[in-house]
Amino acid sequence: MDLTQKIISLTKQKGFIFPSSEIYGGIQGFYDYGPLGVQLKNNIKNAWWRSMVQERDDIFGLDAAIIMNPTAWVASGHVSNFTDPLVECKACHKRFRADHLADKIKETEEFKKRSLSVEDAKDWGKVLEGVECPDCSGELTAPRLFNLMFKTYAGPAEDSASQVYLRPETAQGIFTNYKNILDTQRVKMPFGIAQIGKAFRNEITPGNFIFRQREFEQMEMEYFCKPGTDEQLHEEWIARRLGWYVESLGIKKENLRIREHEKSELAHYAKACSDIEYKFPFGWSEIEGIANRQAHDLTQHQKFSGVDLSYFDETTKEKYLPFVIEPSCGVERLMFAVICDAYLEIEGGRTTTTEATKEAETVLRFSRAMAPVKIAILPLLKNKPDLVDKAREVYQLLKPHFMCRYDEAGTIGRRYRRQDEIGTPYCVTIDFDTLANGDVTVRDRDTMKQDRIKIDTLADYLQRK
Amino acid sequence: MDLTQKIISLTKQKGFIFPSSEIYGGIQGFYDYGPLGVQLKNNIKNAWWRSMVQERDDIFGLDAAIIMNPTAWVASGHVSNFTDPLVECKACHKRFRADHLADKIKETEEFKKRSLSVEDAKDWGKVLEGVECPDCSGELTAPRLFNLMFKTYAGPAEDSASQVYLRPETAQGIFTNYKNILDTQRVKMPFGIAQIGKAFRNEITPGNFIFRQREFEQMEMEYFCKPGTDEQLHEEWIARRLGWYVESLGIKKENLRIREHEKSELAHYAKACSDIEYKFPFGWSEIEGIANRQAHDLTQHQKFSGVDLSYFDETTKEKYLPFVIEPSCGVERLMFAVICDAYLEIEGGRTTTTEATKEAETVLRFSRAMAPVKIAILPLLKNKPDLVDKAREVYQLLKPHFMCRYDEAGTIGRRYRRQDEIGTPYCVTIDFDTLANGDVTVRDRDTMKQDRIKIDTLADYLQRK
Repeated sequence: MDLTQKIISLTKQKGFIFPSSEIYGGIQGFYDYGPLGVQLKNNIKNAWWRSMVQERDDIFGLDAAIIMNPTAWVASGHVSNFTDPLVECKACHKRFRADHLADKIKETEEFKKRSLSVEDAKDWGKVLEGVECPDCSGELTAPRLFNLMFKTYAGPAEDSASQVYLRPETAQGIFTNYKNILDTQRVKMPFGIAQIGKAFRNEITPGNFIFRQREFEQMEMEYFCKPGTDEQLHEEWIARRLGWYVESLGIKKENLRIREHEKSELAHYAKACSDIEYKFPFGWSEIEGIANRQAHDLTQHQKFSGVDLSYFDETTKEKYLPFVIEPSCGVERLMFAVICDAYLEIEGGRTTTTEATKEAETVLRFSRAMAPVKIAILPLLKNKPDLVDKAREVYQLLKPHFMCRYDEAGTIGRRYRRQDEIGTPYCVTIDFDTLANGDVTVRDRDTMKQDRIKIDTLADYLQRK
Repeated sequence: MDLTQKIISLTKQKGFIFPSSEIYGGIQGFYDYGPLGVQLKNNIKNAWWRSMVQERDDIFGLDAAIIMNPTAWVASGHVSNFTDPLVECKACHKRFRADHLADKIKETEEFKKRSLSVEDAKDWGKVLEGVECPDCSGELTAPRLFNLMFKTYAGPAEDSASQVYLRPETAQGIFTNYKNILDTQRVKMPFGIAQIGKAFRNEITPGNFIFRQREFEQMEMEYFCKPGTDEQLHEEWIARRLGWYVESLGIKKENLRIREHEKSELAHYAKACSDIEYKFPFGWSEIEGIANRQAHDLTQHQKFSGVDLSYFDETTKEKYLPFVIEPSCGVERLMFAVICDAYLEIEGGRTTTTEATKEAETVLRFSRAMAPVKIAILPLLKNKPDLVDKAREVYQLLKPHFMCRYDEAGTIGRRYRRQDEIGTPYCVTIDFDTLANGDVTVRDRDTMKQDRIKIDTLADYLQRK
């Protein structure tokens, strides 16, 4: 079983991630997050919000609606350009992205003879000439451009006047509120607007578990600045964001890298873009893009809305449309990276479990900040009321301060392993000595070291950790 | 100007709530939340999550997708029954809910002569016979049932097989995951599943500011229990939830009441339901419903999915479909109630401002927990570098612990009032004495009392508050 399969299986078993609507056979491209998954997602979102909003005096939070006035998507270019080239097999009716098929054939001799370049290709029909369905060798339809925005209707009439979209990115909600922030928050350039929220893309081929979904959550920040200062700020944001993954999410440095986009890859509005990539089991893939979008979006919204979106600098008396640096990432991709990074298999028989075992043991070595459950409270035996009462008491004591779990089922060794599997950093065990002298055993997930700590200093001790 | 209008105006000016996509003329039924609004929403959501998940050992968190397998909505009854009766004026094309129009006429003599009851009416055509458009006296169309679920298509084909819905409530995502929680979380009856997330209802007439929107955020918890224990638990949850509004949101007791539903109002699956109502400027209205849904939802999902959803009690060897108690509320309605409850106008010339003023002053008396900004840091004068440097230093000191604002623009009196208007509980002022002896003035929003506190004990002092 490869690592992705192991993670799919573990995260389902333990209550991190379930296929959505599973009792109805699921729905492709959608996932639900169980008790541990929602905590992990919240930990990631809180860490981002803290570093982007709370600890900055130049960045403002926002929470815009998913459904916007549809003209915003005409202005942004999504109505005409947010498309993927789609082909369908006439025999088995499976659908493919033309660019994905082209990627597969671009190294073949036959393709090279045609002297076409996949990157520049606009005419997918020509590129895919003679290519068959990779599944059943059936004939493929001519490619057509498929818009990835989900469409719906607001109001009781289903006509073009009431057609609206589910936002395919949160960024445009920021641009349409840029003037509201200018007008209400006493801002000075440079400043940013940050937002966390759902986005929807009707992907032709969702896949790689939660990596490419149709419904996902973005964390985006638009940093507005004076043209000319943008390149320097772009560099600074790339460095800052890379650092955040190591310091705040606890991801290993060697599993992260920066990949600067080639000129040919850049969206037409972008001056430059760098991705932060993570080494997933299926290869290095983007977890965050940091783009210099110049004044593209504000120019378009100014044009389509007729509202002046320029910034006037009181000190220098200059008036301009600001450039924008945009660090943009997806919560679930980060979650996937955090899980991959924490995943560790250890030979059986770890010495501090009370029973020997030959099976390999799985540990999720989440950082303290990321761990969905921080502390497990375990009475040594469940059939001794004194131990159970004391353990419940310790649980009540810690619960207001930490996400805790109480567990009394099974041997203590099995319970330690159960906590290791969900990445709980500390287990607090209540034993007969606790009843005698008021101290408990605190076991560390990674070192497996056990400390004896007095109950009345326990919350403090754990807080310091 | 009535209170709702004043609140609409204040919350827009200060950056709490903006009409969505405002530069494009907005979009009816959708709102965006600015820097202060998103913090207030987060404070409400965190308070709910804390009391529902973190501090309970019997309730599990969940975050299910907005788009679900569509069969779930057939099973739940929403595809056939989640409708409002709609009429349209043939002249001005304005649309109305037949039940709202009927409410307006039900006290008239003419209506009473027809001896129809509005509550029991199924035949809206008969009820509205002879009724004209309230706006232009035009003729109305015959009523038709309009389904409030937003529809869209998942995947590239727009056919009935790929039609999906935006969830009109988060609850069904809980029911479809009930078995996942049973299978992965070692639960015992009674237990709950809690979820916060967006829901969408294509309301015919959205209104009352953020009270009735087309896109909104719900906080719902389904508490599963053994049939027979449900009535007692229902009572307990009503009392507990009412208490939460007072203790955690800081809402005044006299502005809250419980309204038990009449038998005739109950949904067919509900055995009983009580609303918690808040005294809004437009009258007492629901902010939370607490329903006894019996085994309705699990029965339906079991039937449509073919999956056994019964619970087996290991101790008593009983097997049953649990009943469900559901406390359900909307984040924005709570936010609206919290703002109304905090809103206060005070005669001008409050003594602790340094300049007299004759205008009425607005204060938002949020509880400490709800206030979007907890502390403002103000140097007495902005043209004294020593004061500004010291103030920035204090700001850096407090920012990791609290949501803070730094403000140096305008007289100190004006700045106090600015913070009062957004409900900041404490202002910390750095003056010349601070430079001499290291203490600062802490001003309390409500008492306007000013304490001198040493900088090195400031974080502690504020934390204790």
